[in-house]
Amino acid sequence: MIASRIRKEIDEALYTFVDRQRPLLGDISGDLSPLLTALDALLAGGKRLRPAFCYWGWRGSGGDDRTEFFTVAASLELLQAGALIHDDVMDGSDTRRGQPAAHRRLEALHAESGWRGSAQAFGSGAAILLGDVCLTWCDEMFQGSGLAAEALSRGRPIFDRMRTEIMCGQYLDLLGQARGRRPGGHEAVEAALRIVVFKSAKYTIERPLQLGAALAGADEASVEALSAYGLPLGVAFQLRDDVLGVFGDPAETGKPAGDDLREGKRTVLVALTLERATDEQAQTVESLLGDPALDTAGVELLRSVIVDTGALDACEQMIGRYAADAEAALDAAPVTLPARDALSELALAVTARTV
Amino acid sequence: MIASRIRKEIDEALYTFVDRQRPLLGDISGDLSPLLTALDALLAGGKRLRPAFCYWGWRGSGGDDRTEFFTVAASLELLQAGALIHDDVMDGSDTRRGQPAAHRRLEALHAESGWRGSAQAFGSGAAILLGDVCLTWCDEMFQGSGLAAEALSRGRPIFDRMRTEIMCGQYLDLLGQARGRRPGGHEAVEAALRIVVFKSAKYTIERPLQLGAALAGADEASVEALSAYGLPLGVAFQLRDDVLGVFGDPAETGKPAGDDLREGKRTVLVALTLERATDEQAQTVESLLGDPALDTAGVELLRSVIVDTGALDACEQMIGRYAADAEAALDAAPVTLPARDALSELALAVTARTV
Repeated sequence: MIASRIRKEIDEALYTFVDRQRPLLGDISGDLSPLLTALDALLAGGKRLRPAFCYWGWRGSGGDDRTEFFTVAASLELLQAGALIHDDVMDGSDTRRGQPAAHRRLEALHAESGWRGSAQAFGSGAAILLGDVCLTWCDEMFQGSGLAAEALSRGRPIFDRMRTEIMCGQYLDLLGQARGRRPGGHEAVEAALRIVVFKSAKYTIERPLQLGAALAGADEASVEALSAYGLPLGVAFQLRDDVLGVFGDPAETGKPAGDDLREGKRTVLVALTLERATDEQAQTVESLLGDPALDTAGVELLRSVIVDTGALDACEQMIGRYAADAEAALDAAPVTLPARDALSELALAVTARTV
Repeated sequence: MIASRIRKEIDEALYTFVDRQRPLLGDISGDLSPLLTALDALLAGGKRLRPAFCYWGWRGSGGDDRTEFFTVAASLELLQAGALIHDDVMDGSDTRRGQPAAHRRLEALHAESGWRGSAQAFGSGAAILLGDVCLTWCDEMFQGSGLAAEALSRGRPIFDRMRTEIMCGQYLDLLGQARGRRPGGHEAVEAALRIVVFKSAKYTIERPLQLGAALAGADEASVEALSAYGLPLGVAFQLRDDVLGVFGDPAETGKPAGDDLREGKRTVLVALTLERATDEQAQTVESLLGDPALDTAGVELLRSVIVDTGALDACEQMIGRYAADAEAALDAAPVTLPARDALSELALAVTARTV
C-alpha cells in the first residue's frame, strides 16, 4: 500500500542507523548479537505505516525528499518495534508478524543453550531490555537525523506527546482487560474506543502525520487541522485491525487464527458484542474470551456470537463511518494535492477488509 | 554526600518536569494516576548520584549554575528510574529504596481492586509501561531543557551511548546469571567485572561526568581523560554496592537482608567466592544462591562462606585499589580545583562501608 520508492527510502534510513549501531554493540560484547538478530527479524516484517503517514504530512506541507527526513520518519519504526516487543511480553503473545515474538525467540535461545533458571524469565527480561534499546534508539535516530535543529524543535512536542500517549494508552488497555465488564453496555464501547484513540489511533496516523507537517514548517492551525483526517482514520484502522484479529487470515495477519480472542483483548468489537448479547451469549463470551487454551471450536463459537449479535456488522459500519469522516476531512485538509491523493489511497488501504 | 544546595536544584528541576507532565496525563485519563504515584514514590528515594557527577563534570569544565543545566542533569534520574523499574520486574524484586517495587505496588492495586486475571501480570505489565514512560521522559527532559542547542549536541553522543550501554550491560547481567558458573575460576571474576563496567560503572559515574564536561564545552581529550577517574570509581562503587547487598544494613540499603543472594545475582563478590571455594563451599553457594525462599540461616551460611573463603577481603582490596586509582587520576584530571575537591569527596562517599 506504500509506494515502493518511499518504502525503499525508509528502509534505507532504518538499516543505515541499525547497521551503525552493530559495531558499538560488538565493542561491548559479542554476546549481544541475539538481541540484534531478534530486532532484525522484527523490523523486516513492518509495514512502515507510521513513517509513510509522516512522509505525507511532510510532503503535504512542502517538505522535499531528503535523507535526513527519511531518517526522522524511519525512527518511528523503532518506537513501534519497542512498543510491540513490550506489548508481546505483557500479553504473553507467541507470534508477531508471522514469526516468533522477540521474547519467545530469546526464551528459545535459553532453552537450546541449556542455561540455568527459567527460560521464560530470561526471554521476558531480555525482551524488556531489547524494547528499551529500541525506544532509546528511536530518539537517538530522531535527534541525530541531521535535519535542521529548528525543524526538529518544531516536531519535538508532537514526537514527545505521541510517545507518552502510546504508553499511557497501553496502560489503559491493560486496565480495561483487568476491569473486564465494568462498566457494561454502551459505556464499555465508549471506554474501548477511548483506549483505541490513545493506544493506536493517534499514534499510528494522527501524530506521525502531524509530526511530518510540523517538521516541514506547517503552522499550528494547519497541524491541528490534520487531526480531522488522522484521528478518525486511526480509529477506523484499529477497528479493522480488531476485526482481522478475530476473522483475519493468519497468512495475512501474521498471527494464529483467534489469537486476540485467546489473549482476551477487550476490543471495541468485543464491547459491541457484549452490548448486544443475550445473557447466554454474554456468558459464552465471558467464559471463553481470554482462555489461553481456546481451541478451533472455541474460536468458531466466539466468532458466531460476534456475528449473530450483529456486532460484526455494527463494527463494519463504524469503520465505514470513521473512514468516511477521514475522507471528507481530506477535502479541506491543508495539504498539497499529491499528498491529498496519497492520503486518500492510504485511507482505503488501512481500512480494507484484507491486510 | 551531595551538597544540599545541589540536591535542591536537581530536585527542583526534576519535580518541575514531572509536575508539568501531570495535567497531560490527566487529560488522557484520570485512571493514569497510579502510575504517577508509583513514580513519585520511587523518585523520592533517589540519591541523585548521577546528576551530581554530571554537575561536577559541568562545573569542572567551566559551566555555571543555571536551571537549564540542572534540568539536563536531573533527566538522568528518570533514566535511572526507568532502568530500576524494569530491573525489578526482571529480577522479581519486592522492594526498592525501602518501599515496594513499582510492579509490586501496581500488583497490589490490582489485588485490592478485585480485578480479573493475574495481579502479578498486571503489575509487571504496568511497570514495564511506567519504565517506558521514564525512559521517554528522560530524553524529553534532556532535549527540552532549554540548554543551548550546540551544548546539547556536544552532549548527545555521550548521552546516547550511555543509554545503550546500560541496557546492554543489563542484558549481559541476565546472561551471566543464566549461564551460571561457566566459565569458572578467575575467568568468572573477569566476566563479572565486565558486566559491572557496562551495567553500572560507566553509567553511574564515567558517563554522567563526561556528559557534564562535554555540555560545558570541554574538548574531546579532556572528556576522554575523565575516564581515568570515572571508570575505576564506578567499578569501586558497584563492588561496594554488591558488598552492601550481602552484608549491608537493610535500613540503609532499602532492601531486605540478603536480597541479592535470594535473587541469585552473579556479582564479582560471588565470583571471587567461587574462585576461592573448596568443592564443599562451592556446592553450598550453588545450592543456596538464587533460592527465593532463602531464610535467615541460609543468608548467614552464605555470608560465612563469602567471609571464610577470603572473598570479602579480596573484594574490599579491589574496592580500595579501584578507589585509589580514581583518586590518583584526579590529580591529573582536567577540571577546576573546586570540582576536584568535590569529586574527591564523592569518591570517598560512594565507596564508604556504609551507605
